[in-house]
Order: sequence, then C-alpha cells, then structure tokens
Amino acid sequence: MLLKTLREEVLEANLEIVRRGLVLYTFGNASGYDRASGLVVIKPSGVPFDRLSASDMVVTNLDSQVVEGDLRPSSDLVTHVLLYRSFDGLGGIVHTHSTAATAWAQAGREIPCFGTTHADYFHGPVPVTAPLTDEEIAGDYELNTGQAIVRRFESLDPHSHPGVLVRSHGPFVWGRTPAEAAMHAVLVEEIARMAARTVALNPQIQPIRRSLHDRHFLRKHGPQATYGQG
Amino acid sequence: MLLKTLREEVLEANLEIVRRGLVLYTFGNASGYDRASGLVVIKPSGVPFDRLSASDMVVTNLDSQVVEGDLRPSSDLVTHVLLYRSFDGLGGIVHTHSTAATAWAQAGREIPCFGTTHADYFHGPVPVTAPLTDEEIAGDYELNTGQAIVRRFESLDPHSHPGVLVRSHGPFVWGRTPAEAAMHAVLVEEIARMAARTVALNPQIQPIRRSLHDRHFLRKHGPQATYGQG
Amino acid sequence: MLLKTLREEVLEANLEIVRRGLVLYTFGNASGYDRASGLVVIKPSGVPFDRLSASDMVVTNLDSQVVEGDLRPSSDLVTHVLLYRSFDGLGGIVHTHSTAATAWAQAGREIPCFGTTHADYFHGPVPVTAPLTDEEIAGDYELNTGQAIVRRFESLDPHSHPGVLVRSHGPFVWGRTPAEAAMHAVLVEEIARMAARTVALNPQIQPIRRSLHDRHFLRKHGPQATYGQG
Amino acid sequence: MLLKTLREEVLEANLEIVRRGLVLYTFGNASGYDRASGLVVIKPSGVPFDRLSASDMVVTNLDSQVVEGDLRPSSDLVTHVLLYRSFDGLGGIVHTHSTAATAWAQAGREIPCFGTTHADYFHGPVPVTAPLTDEEIAGDYELNTGQAIVRRFESLDPHSHPGVLVRSHGPFVWGRTPAEAAMHAVLVEEIARMAARTVALNPQIQPIRRSLHDRHFLRKHGPQATYGQG
Repeated sequence: MLLKTLREEVLEANLEIVRRGLVLYTFGNASGYDRASGLVVIKPSGVPFDRLSASDMVVTNLDSQVVEGDLRPSSDLVTHVLLYRSFDGLGGIVHTHSTAATAWAQAGREIPCFGTTHADYFHGPVPVTAPLTDEEIAGDYELNTGQAIVRRFESLDPHSHPGVLVRSHGPFVWGRTPAEAAMHAVLVEEIARMAARTVALNPQIQPIRRSLHDRHFLRKHGPQATYGQG
Repeated sequence: MLLKTLREEVLEANLEIVRRGLVLYTFGNASGYDRASGLVVIKPSGVPFDRLSASDMVVTNLDSQVVEGDLRPSSDLVTHVLLYRSFDGLGGIVHTHSTAATAWAQAGREIPCFGTTHADYFHGPVPVTAPLTDEEIAGDYELNTGQAIVRRFESLDPHSHPGVLVRSHGPFVWGRTPAEAAMHAVLVEEIARMAARTVALNPQIQPIRRSLHDRHFLRKHGPQATYGQG
Repeated sequence: MLLKTLREEVLEANLEIVRRGLVLYTFGNASGYDRASGLVVIKPSGVPFDRLSASDMVVTNLDSQVVEGDLRPSSDLVTHVLLYRSFDGLGGIVHTHSTAATAWAQAGREIPCFGTTHADYFHGPVPVTAPLTDEEIAGDYELNTGQAIVRRFESLDPHSHPGVLVRSHGPFVWGRTPAEAAMHAVLVEEIARMAARTVALNPQIQPIRRSLHDRHFLRKHGPQATYGQG
Repeated sequence: MLLKTLREEVLEANLEIVRRGLVLYTFGNASGYDRASGLVVIKPSGVPFDRLSASDMVVTNLDSQVVEGDLRPSSDLVTHVLLYRSFDGLGGIVHTHSTAATAWAQAGREIPCFGTTHADYFHGPVPVTAPLTDEEIAGDYELNTGQAIVRRFESLDPHSHPGVLVRSHGPFVWGRTPAEAAMHAVLVEEIARMAARTVALNPQIQPIRRSLHDRHFLRKHGPQATYGQG
C-alpha cells in the first residue's frame, strides 16, 4: 500500500469519528497499519480535528519511532503499536471517549449482548480490561494500557471481538482498515447506548441465547456469510 | 400502480427513516407491496443508504424470487413477504434497529400505552414477539421471525397495531403505503422514548384507561374519524 | 392589533416550536388571541408544518366558530378558547407532545422546582391536571380537557404558572403573546429534561427553598424585576 | 491586552457556548478579565446571543461599575467580579445552565471522578457549593453566590478545579482566557453527562484511584506535561 493512501485513510477515519459525534475536542485518535512496510500512521497529539490534513499524519515504525512528520504523534501511539504487534490482521485502530461506551468503561462493566445489533459485530460481550495497578500507572502507562488489553484477549479472538473498553477510560476499537475501525467505533457507541437503555427497562435481562448470537455473527462473518452483495 | 412509482415510494421511505435518525449504516430497510401485480419492492442488502437510487430497488414476487434488479434483496425480505401474505391491506413495511424501540425489544417488554401520542396510533400496547427456539433460529430464520410476528397477531388486528417489536432484535412496522410505514416507524421510536422516560419517573404507572385510549385512536381511525382536513 | 399581524405571529410560533424540536409531525399547535376584536388565530388541523403559511391560519371567535379561513381549525381549538375565556391576559397558547414534558404528564407527576431555571419562569411546580372521568372523555373531550386545566388553576395564578401538564397527554403552555407562549413551551421541555435527570441522580431531592424560588421568580416578574435591559 | 481584543474574545466565548448547545435563550454568560488594566468585559443582560456584537460587551471595573458600554451588564456580573478578585490567574469565566451539569447542581451532588476524561481537567471531583441561607438569598444574592463559591474553595485550588456547581442553580467555570473557560464549560457538561450514565449503570461505583487521577491530570498540567505539540 502506498503510504500516501494510508495517510488519507487515517485522516478520513479521524474525520469520520468526529462527524459521527464520538469526539469532543481532541479526545480521540485513529491510526492505520501497513503490514508490508511495518509502518503505522497516526493522528498528531492535541491538534484540533478541523485543522488536520493528510500531511499532518505522523508515520512511525513498530518501535514507536517517528519516521516521517514534523508533529509529535498522539500520546496513545504506544498503545496502538502494541495492538498491531499483538493482534494479527489489524489494519486500523480507533480510540475515543464516546459518551455511552465510556460510561460502561467508567462503570467497570462489560456490555452483555442483548440483541442482534450487537451480535452482528461482536461474538460475545464487549469486554472490559482489568484495572491497572499503581505501578503500571506510574510506569509506562500507555504501554501498560496496551498490555491490559492484550491480557484481556488471552482467551478471546480480536477478530470476533473488534474492540474493548479500557476501564475508567474509554473504548479502543479496531478493524482490517482504518475505515472499518471507525465504523466499529460508531457501532460500539450505539451498542452501549442501546444496552444502557435495555438494563434501565429490565435490570434482570439476560444476554441473548447462543444460537441467536451465532446466527447473526456468522451471517456477517466467516465462510458462511450471506449478508450484502458479496 | 406503476412499478416505477412503487420503486420511488420505497426509495423515499428508505431515505425518510435515515433522515429521521432511525438507521445507522445499513441497519434498516423499507419495502412496498402492489396488491394488483403481487409484486414486492425492497431495498437491496447491505448497500449504503446514501448511494441508493430507485433503480437499485429489488422487485420480487410473493415467493421471494427476484423479478427485476441486479442486486441481492435485503436479507429480511422473507420476513416482509410473509407479512404481506398474512396481513390484508399492507402496502409498506419498515424494519429498523432504532435506539429506543430496540431497547424495549432487547428488554423483552411490550410498550404499554401511557398517553395519547401512543393512543393516536396503536389501539393497545406495542406488542413484542415470543423468543424463537434454537430450532427456529437454526432453520429458516427470517421466515421464522415472520411467523413469530404472525403468531403474536393471532388475536390482534394489524391495522390497529401497525407494528411489533421482534424480541432481542428491533421493530417491524407497517402501513397502507411505504410512506405510512415510515411514519409509523418514527412514531414507534418516539413512543418508545417517551415510555422509557415515563417508567423511569413512575415505575408503578399503569396504562391509560380504555375510554381515553378509544377516544384518541378512534378520532384518527375508522368511520368516526374527525382529525385533519378530511 | 391587525389580524394580519396576529396571523404572522401565530405562524411564527408554530414554526418556532418545530425548529426547537418540540413537534413531531403534526403533534402541536400554537394560537394567538386579540382581546380587542375577541378573535382567535390558530393552526389548521393536521396540516404539515413545512407547508404552513400565514394565510392557512384559521380565525375563529370565542364560540369556536370559524370567521376566516378555508381549513378546519386544530381539533384542540376548544381547549385553547376555554383558556382564553378563563384566564385574563393570555395572548398566546402552545400545545405540544414534547418528549420530556410529556413523560412527566404520562407519569402523572407535577414537576417540582429543583432549581433556578425553573424558578425564573414558574412560581411553583409545573402542575398536572387530574384524570378525566369516562364521562368527560366520552363527552365534549376537548372542552373537558380545558375545564380540567381551569379546575387545576382554581387556586393558582396562570401568570405565575404559565403552563400545565395535561395528564396522560402533554403540555399546554401560554404567554402574553404567541412568541412568549412558544418560549415558555421550550422552557417547560428543558425544565422537564433537567428535573428527570435530577431525580435520577437523587430520588430524595426536595424542591428548592421558598426564598430562593421567590428571589428568582420576582427578579424577572412583577414591579421589582431587575433582569434585562428594561 | 487591548480592550478591543478582550471584547472580541468575550464575544467569541459567548458564541461558543451557544454553538456547543450549553445555552438556551439567555441562560448563560461569559466574561474576560484583563489583569493589567483591572477591567472586566461581560455579556450584557438579557440580550439574545444571535444579536450580540463585540461592541455590545460591557466593560466594568472590579467594583462592578460600568466603564464603557450602553447596555446593562449581566446580572451575574457581581459573581464574576468576586471570582476574579478572589482567585489569582483567572482570565475568563463562563456561567451556564447546561442540562447535565445543572442536573447534578440541582441534585446537590458533586461529580466524582469516574474516569480519565474528568481526570484530564479536574484534579478531584467537580465541587458543589453549600446552600445559601434565607438571609444570603434575600440580601446581595449574586455577591453571596460568589462568596459561597469562594468558601467552597477554601481548601481547593481553583487551577486544579476549574469550575464549580452552584447548588440548585448551575455551573460556573473558568480558565486563563475566555476561550479556555468556554472549553472547560463544555467539558464539565460532558463529564456530567458521562457520570450520570455511569452511576445509572453502577450505583456503587467508586472514584478512580489516586494514581490514575494524578497520571492524567499531571500529563496535561504543570511542569511534567507531555501532551500536545508543546
């Protein structure tokens, strides 16, 4: 992939999460990863979204060293890089503080699968990470945030659970491309919104049965997929 | 009715549910039915709403066979067709995952009639279907979804209850035309929103009395209707 | 006042409640009253707001008889007229089914005064009417709705309480002009929204003390008013 | 600083809080302070925001006397002035009745720090003032409101807590400039929104641990700040 194309895709994903109302000020960032070259493209730190251009995007390697670009990368770069290193097949990552998903992260609750909207995209709950220890917080915080995510996925497939709630913080969401990561971030916010309203109406509600969950997830993913114009 | 007109009406209903905020990405579809020809027009599967044109609409017969169109029809087609077959007088059906109505569907609760906004359009609660069995889910899922709706209406009139919540899924709503179905989908979302706020303020609230419900519903429907410029 | 001016003011109030998000489809109407001529101007029944012009407004007398206009007046006309007859000094009335205020009406709860936003406009709770009897509902329903409002105000001053929640229905709100009535309708919706969030955060919260309520209400109303450029 | 520049900055802060949805009608005001000249610039009282120009801004001294301008200053001027006098380093103050923050103020609850969005801006809860006594309300109300804020900050640093909820009223928020004060007002509203959703999902949730709170606050503030392009 041409780096120029990836810069544009990452810019577009950053703009998409703003247009969809997931981002207040600079609370959010999208990145993209080109497996062939081993390069990551990410939003610069603290730059207002309405002034971003493709040339502002920062290019780094998998050691988080800047390869191209005059601006400092997002402070969450180290977390992004660890996820690209740890999870095969990721081409884009989005981090936001979107309101409804962040409320679940702050409440320290995973989002159970209450319906088919959720089941179409996550093959289980939207997971939440364990709290960091004081040592992890005082140490290499962004790296340790990434490691808390990786630990949470020890027995989970990142392709059937394309995102996570970092406890007391907010969602990290991914996909095969920056555009898919942005779409998944929008869906996590909507799933969070619906689930909060669901538990308010029925605090005893249980997750949907496995057969229904499988039916929906597998309709859109894997070799049996029947959805769309494919 | 000319098929060309129906295509345009179905396109317009699909666009209306997007404009009204009921649809995220491709989570929704509208169809129309022409009784004279026995043909159904429906949105294609997985095509973004902002690229839809009238010529993208798929035309099928009541056996769900495509009669015209190059695209695959919405995967919910079989559900739509069963409703057109089972309920007399339907000219349009809309399915969405709109946030507030889906929360009631996910909570597994019918929406009681708490006020006159609801009473103007539904002559009773907004019903919810029974859960599907594992066999129904593993089998012809979309057909069985339709049959769960039809079973729920065994003792209900689909014209005095122009919609239903499919449990753990979302609303299916209908009308005499695609435009009326879209309007009813918007109303079901608003009724769901108001009712959730009502039970939050008063968890013991009871449905309105029958006389008030009748007064409002019959003011807008049936031979005694007095509302509007008719 | 010229009737032409009042028509335009009533049109503008009808458009304002749409722009402010208080109205879905045709669920709302604004009227104005000219004391000198004894004439009422009101929105026609069931006409979409985006097609309204000043010349569509219907002019009636205080017996609810149409004096000018080709369209049928809003079915709520009789309620409006009774309020103009019963409460001195009203120049405009707005009725909506706005979401948050209607939720309180549906819950059958008056809105207690929890803060200064409320206190600036209502010198007490936003009252709620008693339920209508089956006889009142089966009889002259719109008139009986108006009479339920008038009974609720037997010991309340309509100028210090410029609106009411009709139980199981929605708010009727008024002012010295159609524009003020529309502004009060917007405020009632915001007061309802804030109050619902307040009781969710603190179910035991009590209304503000009388001294604070008086301080705010009397700052904006009556001979001691100090607010604005007066 | 040129007074002309400050007028424009204050106008812009007033417009920003409207664009961000924090203000209904005239429920809000922004001011700025020029330490060198000892002058305050504030929005005029009761003037609609869509008609404001820089020349409408009112200039006063720290005795709340108008120095320039034909309009009456906002009735909250005395509160603003007391804060400029009491807290070193303030260059802008914003007062609103924004919905979610006002709900916490009306509920009489401070907003605990449940996550990193909050921790990035407040080094502790968003505090709430004690109720005013009847005597304080009947006396110099706006001054006493300011004094309740100052008392609340006896053991708090206004630079690590750039805002407060005035009980039963709404937020006062500040910054080094009018623009920063407006940004903090937007953040307080979002923090309030997230926190309300958080306690709804988990009523027993505790504030985040001190180490995480410090890590985030100190990343953006003080000599160790690493965020942005600085």
